[in-house]
Amino acid sequence: MKKLLIANRGEIAVRIIRTAREMGIVTVAVVSEADKTSLAADLADEAIVVGPAPAGLSYLNHDAVLKAALDSGADAVHPGYGFLSENAEFARKVIAAGLTWVGPSPESIELMGDKSRARRAAIDAGVPTLPGTETALRDDDDLEAIAARIGYPLVVKASAGGGGRGIRLVEDPAQLRGTVEIAQAEALGAFNSADVYFEKFVTRARHVEVQILGDGETFVHLGDRDCSMQRRQQKILEEAPAPGLPDEVRERMRDSSVELARKANYVGVGTVEFLYDPFSHEVAFIEMNTRIQVEHTITEAITGMDLVREQLRIAAGEKLDITQSDVTFSGHALEFRINAEDPDNNFMPSPGLIKTMNLPGGAGVRADFGFISGKTVAPFYDSLLGKIIVWAPTRELAIARSARALDEAHIDGVKSTIGLLSSLVGLPDFADVKHHTKYIESFLDSTIPDSTGDAE
Amino acid sequence: MKKLLIANRGEIAVRIIRTAREMGIVTVAVVSEADKTSLAADLADEAIVVGPAPAGLSYLNHDAVLKAALDSGADAVHPGYGFLSENAEFARKVIAAGLTWVGPSPESIELMGDKSRARRAAIDAGVPTLPGTETALRDDDDLEAIAARIGYPLVVKASAGGGGRGIRLVEDPAQLRGTVEIAQAEALGAFNSADVYFEKFVTRARHVEVQILGDGETFVHLGDRDCSMQRRQQKILEEAPAPGLPDEVRERMRDSSVELARKANYVGVGTVEFLYDPFSHEVAFIEMNTRIQVEHTITEAITGMDLVREQLRIAAGEKLDITQSDVTFSGHALEFRINAEDPDNNFMPSPGLIKTMNLPGGAGVRADFGFISGKTVAPFYDSLLGKIIVWAPTRELAIARSARALDEAHIDGVKSTIGLLSSLVGLPDFADVKHHTKYIESFLDSTIPDSTGDAE
Repeated sequence: MKKLLIANRGEIAVRIIRTAREMGIVTVAVVSEADKTSLAADLADEAIVVGPAPAGLSYLNHDAVLKAALDSGADAVHPGYGFLSENAEFARKVIAAGLTWVGPSPESIELMGDKSRARRAAIDAGVPTLPGTETALRDDDDLEAIAARIGYPLVVKASAGGGGRGIRLVEDPAQLRGTVEIAQAEALGAFNSADVYFEKFVTRARHVEVQILGDGETFVHLGDRDCSMQRRQQKILEEAPAPGLPDEVRERMRDSSVELARKANYVGVGTVEFLYDPFSHEVAFIEMNTRIQVEHTITEAITGMDLVREQLRIAAGEKLDITQSDVTFSGHALEFRINAEDPDNNFMPSPGLIKTMNLPGGAGVRADFGFISGKTVAPFYDSLLGKIIVWAPTRELAIARSARALDEAHIDGVKSTIGLLSSLVGLPDFADVKHHTKYIESFLDSTIPDSTGDAE
Repeated sequence: MKKLLIANRGEIAVRIIRTAREMGIVTVAVVSEADKTSLAADLADEAIVVGPAPAGLSYLNHDAVLKAALDSGADAVHPGYGFLSENAEFARKVIAAGLTWVGPSPESIELMGDKSRARRAAIDAGVPTLPGTETALRDDDDLEAIAARIGYPLVVKASAGGGGRGIRLVEDPAQLRGTVEIAQAEALGAFNSADVYFEKFVTRARHVEVQILGDGETFVHLGDRDCSMQRRQQKILEEAPAPGLPDEVRERMRDSSVELARKANYVGVGTVEFLYDPFSHEVAFIEMNTRIQVEHTITEAITGMDLVREQLRIAAGEKLDITQSDVTFSGHALEFRINAEDPDNNFMPSPGLIKTMNLPGGAGVRADFGFISGKTVAPFYDSLLGKIIVWAPTRELAIARSARALDEAHIDGVKSTIGLLSSLVGLPDFADVKHHTKYIESFLDSTIPDSTGDAE
């Protein structure tokens, strides 16, 4: 691999460029018109404009991105996360054009992209799953009988959904048929497939996940993470390792995730996501993401590994130079997602010129940002400015260090989530691991007046 | 320890404030008039002006600093490095005022501050030393006979000197008496003591050193560092562990350094500095610094420890909670000192307003700076803006990562050493560990025109 095209933007584009440069690989950034002067465009060896701002016309435009790759003489394409990263069709086009796809095979992407097939694969690999249907519901299924067997509350999930999208809650039998019909119609509109399935619903669960790495022959896990601090199903604070997990639960999650990767002949990095019920101590498969994850940085912090380097090495055909026993874990890491949003105004996006951005420094503090002072946050994309990652020998020290680091961070020009994250990391409930995936909503309800009255 | 006064400025003041905050200790910064709006003043809980800009009237003014400590209700004083950090008299005043001195005892400071007594202590502890006189020269000594026994070239060193100051080279017997007389006069003027001694001179040596930590009962080393990249005896690029040392040399350095600390009942952090001759593979004691060192960060990077935390814990009377076997080393770290100097103009200081400072981010990169965008570099102090510290699993990867990181660093408003450091880290001689303490001078002579004609 000599020249890498990065089919993404923002902090993940910068992240990939950094490792590529350290490996001596020439980088090509594709950018929209709005991102022509982005930090990624500055740092890459070349930047190619592939279309106007809306992602559909630039970052998601298969032909434009592929043409940029071929025109620039790139021999590989890294899709980052989001955008085209889990698009099997695009992966196939990249491979058909004779380029290296930095990611798992299109077949792996498809398997894990179909949530009911993925669930079936998880069950086959011994990954614990929630009670639910093992395939998509069929028109002639006895919905009431199936639902009664699973138990209420349950969720109807779009087979092609993911990332928290395409999920509807059913609390009692009276809602069942209506909700299934709505879910099918929504799924057809959003994912081009009306397939839905049932799964038991767990309240107050924690979100835990296992980082997987494979080369098609050797498969290892790089430990687990907890991503329970979520706002509207978007993670905003993650940590590694996941705190407060019984040893046997952690082992079962890790081992079965490796087995799932092995059965799928998985190539590259991937994440197996779970729900953990802290009351029953049960853990259950949610989905597998077939790409680098935003929060991969905390796994890097506790393992000393560079996951993008591993992705690039494996994509280039190299074999893993480690086995499971070589993976060692040290200390505890937290990641804070700094979004250009206004927490005092219902998290409205806050685009604009970043006049000054001063990021924290010192021992155990890493900053991964897609922006620097003087750059402008465009209104067209997700609001992630970057991430502050904090490592310390213990969780307690990592929390203390995080409070200090967040206090040092100042962004002038756009609103950000820094203050909210500062509040969250200082909560006794967080220290005591009493939070869950719906925690922030209740925290915000009780502390921040929401003048919009939006009940969503 | 509840409230800590920091008797220093710049990056080390910020460094100490960070750890104190993580430990829940309230911080008081003493500042000169010129530093009233410094980053350290911003980050500390309180800032007290102790006098006008020249350090002698503020940072070095014992009474003013002590008064600030007592007035603020601080119960401890951290001197940082430089300034009052190795001033036994000031340490005694702090202790006499009923405050905690964050550092070794005044006796330890005095012992190691007297270079000929320190040399004697080193010999007693089995620390390898260069051939030389074991005590200060006396008027009735037969200088020619002593010098002949040691061999030429040799150096005349001020007993009270240190940090590369108070050293004169003697290349042949004809220069001997005249040089001794000059050295004595200089020593009297500079250090208030005419005592000098002889030591063998090693050309093309490397500077290596061992980090020591002790609580008066338990003594450990935290590995070694190489600081051979120096310009006029000022370190500018350091790394840990020291590369290219034979195992037995490394072990002997480390073990004898621990023994030196043990014999001195040493309390706190300290550094035992050595010259290493890569041709003879001999290593020899230079001096022991009884304070935190600028380059302590690279030891933190490879051990995961926080050395300022250890200082504060030990000063507060706590015992070390580790023994030597708990200290583990991982990977390789480099530190780059970013000075506000103009390498194209004979390293003239470059004070002024920092319009924008963008520091590198990403995996394995730490930034410790005393400045942020919008702060002004005053002309009154040393030119250190801060340090970029880079860690990676191997030296080779750390060098590649450093090149990437330095390339991302941009400071607008003052000149800096970033470009020079970029050049140095990319040199094959550095990769091959062929550099030595005089390397930069020869490198600069061959690459950068010096229009001043200054031959110093």
